[in-house]
Amino acid sequence: MTTNGLVLFPDVEELDFVGPWEVFATSSMVKSLGGGEPDTVVGISQSAGPVRCAKGMRVVPDHTLSDHPDLHVVLVPGGQGARREKDNRELMGWLAEVSSRCRWVASVCTGALLLHEAGPGKGRRLATHWAFEDSLAARGNVEVVSGARWVQDGNVVSSQGVSAGIDMALWLVGQLESPGHARTVQRYMQYDPAPPYQE
Amino acid sequence: MTTNGLVLFPDVEELDFVGPWEVFATSSMVKSLGGGEPDTVVGISQSAGPVRCAKGMRVVPDHTLSDHPDLHVVLVPGGQGARREKDNRELMGWLAEVSSRCRWVASVCTGALLLHEAGPGKGRRLATHWAFEDSLAARGNVEVVSGARWVQDGNVVSSQGVSAGIDMALWLVGQLESPGHARTVQRYMQYDPAPPYQE
Repeated sequence: MTTNGLVLFPDVEELDFVGPWEVFATSSMVKSLGGGEPDTVVGISQSAGPVRCAKGMRVVPDHTLSDHPDLHVVLVPGGQGARREKDNRELMGWLAEVSSRCRWVASVCTGALLLHEAGPGKGRRLATHWAFEDSLAARGNVEVVSGARWVQDGNVVSSQGVSAGIDMALWLVGQLESPGHARTVQRYMQYDPAPPYQE
Repeated sequence: MTTNGLVLFPDVEELDFVGPWEVFATSSMVKSLGGGEPDTVVGISQSAGPVRCAKGMRVVPDHTLSDHPDLHVVLVPGGQGARREKDNRELMGWLAEVSSRCRWVASVCTGALLLHEAGPGKGRRLATHWAFEDSLAARGNVEVVSGARWVQDGNVVSSQGVSAGIDMALWLVGQLESPGHARTVQRYMQYDPAPPYQE
């Protein structure tokens, strides 16, 4: 039984966290249907009340930083707000503390900047959105990986921008359960991507 | 300037609507950055207050059925709740009425059942989640298409399950703007999918 905590903050990018949410929650559903114990997926923010995301969607967090279940997986999305949140000492302190007790610490997109600022991403190989690779590298004490959809370094896993969180989360449930389980989740989500207008 | 309305209801599947939300809103951002007029993306539900989605996420709708801007695009997601909502006469009546005034009428996953029930999907070629193709076909007066990620029939476009809404929405912004614009949106979302554990 895995408890997945997704960090929410103002101007978080919608798909950065909803892609992994769908993957983790579908994984739980598949386990339940097979007679297993379900997992938990929760959104955690600094304060209660709806969070306005980068592209206008408003989501209601399930927990606050000071009141949430123990997490096995913490996932930090990116988005416009990530640049501001890296100066949020309360959130960074929480992230450092919680990460030290998690089995997996994950980021999507510019969430990598937050993982690096808070500590768990320092000295690691990390992926981020293509437009922010230079600013992540400029922070120092990090090896930015350009050519991979997601990167694992110990128990830290980070993905490229926005939609890449789906692929990373599928990989993660494959590590937590099995590759066959991840393929079942993929099939439920009918994740056979076919982007249009390819050149 | 395009106003996109995404229909929200209890037990709507998270990624079904957030994938298209991200695509439509990113399209708007790209247009703004190029000096164009931004688009609008809103969630519309029967009543105000947070909607609990199929996988537990709570989203706050922007408008209700009786109070929303004129829509150019209406998109109906699927999810566990779709099976119940097709018996919701108020929602089906609204959907029939609004669809008649939209440039594009779209569904993701089992949202196709709602488009069919309400009328706009009747007599059309439609795609849906693989697990619901038989029940959609059994309704009659529809040609269910199995082999395509999304299907256009006139101004009705429907996609396969859950994640397929991303591909369909990208196709749609390419129709509304241009294929090159859709590719810019795709690049911002870093949508170069790479599902893990492929056999």
